[in-house]
Amino acid sequence: MNRYPGKEKGILIVISGFSGAGKGTLVKSLISRYGNYALSVSMTTRNPRPGETDGVEYFFTDRENFEKTIAEGGLVEYAEYCGNYYGTPKAYVDSKLAEGKDIILEIEIQGALKIKKQFPDSLLLFVTPPDADTLKNRLTGRGTETEDVILKRMARAQEESEGIEAYDYIVVNDNLDECVDEVHELVSAARRSPVRRQDFIKEIREELLTYAKGAQK
Amino acid sequence: MNRYPGKEKGILIVISGFSGAGKGTLVKSLISRYGNYALSVSMTTRNPRPGETDGVEYFFTDRENFEKTIAEGGLVEYAEYCGNYYGTPKAYVDSKLAEGKDIILEIEIQGALKIKKQFPDSLLLFVTPPDADTLKNRLTGRGTETEDVILKRMARAQEESEGIEAYDYIVVNDNLDECVDEVHELVSAARRSPVRRQDFIKEIREELLTYAKGAQK
Repeated sequence: MNRYPGKEKGILIVISGFSGAGKGTLVKSLISRYGNYALSVSMTTRNPRPGETDGVEYFFTDRENFEKTIAEGGLVEYAEYCGNYYGTPKAYVDSKLAEGKDIILEIEIQGALKIKKQFPDSLLLFVTPPDADTLKNRLTGRGTETEDVILKRMARAQEESEGIEAYDYIVVNDNLDECVDEVHELVSAARRSPVRRQDFIKEIREELLTYAKGAQK
Repeated sequence: MNRYPGKEKGILIVISGFSGAGKGTLVKSLISRYGNYALSVSMTTRNPRPGETDGVEYFFTDRENFEKTIAEGGLVEYAEYCGNYYGTPKAYVDSKLAEGKDIILEIEIQGALKIKKQFPDSLLLFVTPPDADTLKNRLTGRGTETEDVILKRMARAQEESEGIEAYDYIVVNDNLDECVDEVHELVSAARRSPVRRQDFIKEIREELLTYAKGAQK
C-alpha cells in the first residue's frame, strides 16, 4: 500500500519572489540539503554555452521544434526573451513527478498562475525579504547596478507584490538556513492537503462504504 | 515590529475526524508537548459535575442567558444534545487569539464549516486512522460496544468521509507521537499562508510603494 506521505507522486513546486529575495541560493541549498528535490530542466532555442549539456542545464532545440511543441500543448508555460524561447516541457515534469521527485520551477507570477491552472495540486511559494529596506540593501550590495536601476527593480517588486495572494505560502527569507528548512516543512505540509491525498480519500471511502453496507443489513 | 511567525495573532484550529481516530489523545498530547495551544472552553447549560470549575471545563450558564447569547451573535457555533446547549463563545475565542494562543476546537463538520465562514483564517484538520480496518479495530478494542453499534459507527464515519475535502489538511493518525509533531508542523505552515500574513503583505507593499514612487520621479 502506498498510503503514506513521501512515498507518493512528487509535488510541483513553483518558486517566485522579488529579484534580490535570494530564490536562487534558497533553491540550491534546498536541493543539496534534502534528497527529494530537483530543478526542472527547461527547453530553449538558445545555443548551448561551453560546458552546457543537453538535458542537464537545458533541453536544446530549434525554433521549429519548439513551436511544434507549443502547438501540441507540450509546454506547461513558455516565454520569449531576447529572441529565444524558454519553456517547461510537460512530459519531463510529468515523468519526474511520477518518479516521486519534487520538481522546482523558478518562474514569475504569470507563469505561476498558468502552472496552478494545469496542475491544481502544485505548490506556489512566494519568497520575500523581511522588509523593503532589506531588499534594497541586497540589491545595492551586489554593487553591479546604478541607483536608478535599483529603484526600477524596487518599482518592479512593488508591482509583483500585488500578486502575493495567489500563492499558497509566503516565505520570509531572513536567515537562509532557517528558510531552507521552512520550505521543506511547507512541502511536507502540502502532502497532507486533500487535493494531494485524493487516492487516500478514495480508498478509505470505499473501505468505509463496505462496512457501512454491513451495518444497513 | 511584529512581523515574524509565532509572534502574531493565534490560529483557530478546528479538529474533526472519525470517532475512534484518536482526536482526544492527539489534542491532549499536543497541548502538553507544545506551549502555545489551548483547548477552547465551551459554554453549556448542563449542570457542573463534582470537581468541575466554571471557566475551566466549561462556562456554566442557564438557558435564558445561553439563548440571549445566541441572539446577540455571541457564539461561533452551538448545538443542543440531550436537552442541554453547548456552544463556543466568540468573545472567548477572540481574546485568546489576540493573546497569541492557538485555540483548538474539537467539533464535527457542520460546526467546522460555520467556523470557517466566520474565521476564514481558521485551520481545519481532519484526523483519520490509516485505513478502515484500523478504525474498526480501535472501536472494537474499546470493548464497550456491540458489533451492531460498531458497524453503525463505521456507517457514520462513511457519511463523515464525504466532507473531507472541506478541510485544509488530512492528518493520518498511525503513530501518535509522529502525529502530534505533524499537527504542530501544519500549524506552523499555516502561519505562512497569505490569509494569515495580511499585516505583513500590507506593510511590505506600502514600503515598496514608497521606493517605487522614488523611481518614477
